[in-house]
Amino acid sequence: MNAGDSLRLLRERRPLVHQITNYVVMNETANATLALGALPVMAHAREEVEEMVALAGALVINIGTLSPHWVDAMLAAGRAANGGGVPVVVDPVGAGATRYRTETAKRILTEVDVAVLRGNAGEVATLVGVDAEVRGVESIGAGGDPADLARAAARALGVVASVTGPVDHVSDGERVVKIANGHPLLAAVTGTGCMSTAITGCFLAVAGSAFDAAAEALVAFGVAAEDAARGASGPGTFHANLYDALAALDPDTLAGRARVE
Amino acid sequence: MNAGDSLRLLRERRPLVHQITNYVVMNETANATLALGALPVMAHAREEVEEMVALAGALVINIGTLSPHWVDAMLAAGRAANGGGVPVVVDPVGAGATRYRTETAKRILTEVDVAVLRGNAGEVATLVGVDAEVRGVESIGAGGDPADLARAAARALGVVASVTGPVDHVSDGERVVKIANGHPLLAAVTGTGCMSTAITGCFLAVAGSAFDAAAEALVAFGVAAEDAARGASGPGTFHANLYDALAALDPDTLAGRARVE
Amino acid sequence: MNAGDSLRLLRERRPLVHQITNYVVMNETANATLALGALPVMAHAREEVEEMVALAGALVINIGTLSPHWVDAMLAAGRAANGGGVPVVVDPVGAGATRYRTETAKRILTEVDVAVLRGNAGEVATLVGVDAEVRGVESIGAGGDPADLARAAARALGVVASVTGPVDHVSDGERVVKIANGHPLLAAVTGTGCMSTAITGCFLAVAGSAFDAAAEALVAFGVAAEDAARGASGPGTFHANLYDALAALDPDTLAGRARVE
Repeated sequence: MNAGDSLRLLRERRPLVHQITNYVVMNETANATLALGALPVMAHAREEVEEMVALAGALVINIGTLSPHWVDAMLAAGRAANGGGVPVVVDPVGAGATRYRTETAKRILTEVDVAVLRGNAGEVATLVGVDAEVRGVESIGAGGDPADLARAAARALGVVASVTGPVDHVSDGERVVKIANGHPLLAAVTGTGCMSTAITGCFLAVAGSAFDAAAEALVAFGVAAEDAARGASGPGTFHANLYDALAALDPDTLAGRARVE
Repeated sequence: MNAGDSLRLLRERRPLVHQITNYVVMNETANATLALGALPVMAHAREEVEEMVALAGALVINIGTLSPHWVDAMLAAGRAANGGGVPVVVDPVGAGATRYRTETAKRILTEVDVAVLRGNAGEVATLVGVDAEVRGVESIGAGGDPADLARAAARALGVVASVTGPVDHVSDGERVVKIANGHPLLAAVTGTGCMSTAITGCFLAVAGSAFDAAAEALVAFGVAAEDAARGASGPGTFHANLYDALAALDPDTLAGRARVE
Repeated sequence: MNAGDSLRLLRERRPLVHQITNYVVMNETANATLALGALPVMAHAREEVEEMVALAGALVINIGTLSPHWVDAMLAAGRAANGGGVPVVVDPVGAGATRYRTETAKRILTEVDVAVLRGNAGEVATLVGVDAEVRGVESIGAGGDPADLARAAARALGVVASVTGPVDHVSDGERVVKIANGHPLLAAVTGTGCMSTAITGCFLAVAGSAFDAAAEALVAFGVAAEDAARGASGPGTFHANLYDALAALDPDTLAGRARVE
């Protein structure tokens, strides 16, 4: 894994990253994508998603603000992405909070071949279900070992599981990598989880594997957050700084700054 | 009324504030909610709003960008909130500008038990109608006494009326409190009215009464705006500073900074 | 052409600028409109667009995130604007990327009398078609003379064509004006093209002609971008500064700062 090499490649190729995401964070994930060096495109109409995803280097599906027409488009885009070899990352925002979100996330995971599932511990645990291996949704959400959760989710769902939190855990079902980059202010800005998913999409378009992409994206985003926190006076200035920091990420030093084990 | 005590409680409890709001300000009201210390959730699908609002400490309904499916969801969420004892704040954005907005706002006020109506003088006057007590919509919108308008609206609509402007007026139909906190730059950033409604939702989840919540929210938001204006060079930097200032609000000094009569 | 006189008039009259635009940039175009000195209103419901546009000084139609209900509303609003003498500016975001966008943009240009078409070279070239005069979509998109493209588009489509890029070109089919104001950081923030369209709408509400409005808007936005870049550390702080700079534009010096030929 070398996040710097992937970042360099991303800035050379400028892949198109097709995002079907929620209303709350669209501007933010587009700006994070652009600041990093890739090209975002937001398109959700059933009439165009298949054509758009065929142009893309990766597809981001985020269920943060759902409605039936959007779910149809997510599934159509996901299937088209699969048909064209375009990797898909899914963000199951709020899975576990309502049945509609849980069922939609499960339906996407069933009907689409998902490369990376990027969520928080509660969301991912919900999707793995009350499996003894993961010691029940509640216990894990509340304090179980996120490394175990990531591994179990990767195995059960056939994805690379990217479970973010104070420390992030990425697993392909065998390996688990822990990533300690980041900053507490990320939790004070809405949509930073969604941004990490969008950035995972960016790295999926260039990295050597889905596992590498998921881990490299979290290193890059975490390092940018560390840089953004310097000079920030709170969540608002941190948020503005975050785009500056993503744009300023240096491929030559990025891998060396990874806090990974 | 003690805004500081409510803020302290809010940061301890971190209530979920369910917001069905307009596309323009979703990110902004979510970030204001989060910066203050509560947890925002945006969900508008008919399929999930009743389940989501049952988890919430307050419901925010904002009609800033309407369409029929959204109106259905607002009404369903509002009724479910009423059934579960979850207080509701309504922001009638643009009532008076088009019949669709005016009628939708009136329909929500009729079909849902609304705790607080938070709007500007023109919007609130529209909803009270051409009542002699409020000297007609136009005259009040143009320069009538907003204290009279707030009192009349509270009585006519059976709500706490929170009428914001250069000086804010909150009334439960008997009492009227005037709040002079705030800053002119609030008028140069879109969605600051919507943010004040979202923050009213945050305080509704913890304050002693709807009247207290409405007034405390405007004190907190106004004080944050005063802090944000220091060091701002215009609406863009003020906007970023505003989240910093909301996060930095000090429960120990907040009540003392209220400019209330 | 005098951008300063129009800006002064705009701040006196504060025209309402009705925008039917994409989810990604709604907050940004509203804030740009407000910072400049006009009043934005976002309304997309078929139930209210005709009534809303009747109140407006200009209508902005932007196809950045489409769906069928929105297209219906854009057409209805456009026809109502035409009926009421309200000038219309169209932003064909992504025309050429999918058939749905290309066909929707063409349909709007056919069914609505459009004053200004504001797009990038690839979008505008797509809408002019593979016409020999413009040497084919690809060649022009890839490096043809944008002055020729602007003139050809204006003639073929019966609009003022405003083709933005590192240097902008505005043509009414006869005259072509080149505008070299701006800054490379504009390309690092999503929605800056959409903002330039919104600002074109603002100037349409006050300028002497559509040609003047289109050119003056790009001067104003470009000068603001130059100011915003000073002191910016990257796209995030540039973005915040951009609203400060729009608000701080000085009508007395604006025309003198135009880099026009």
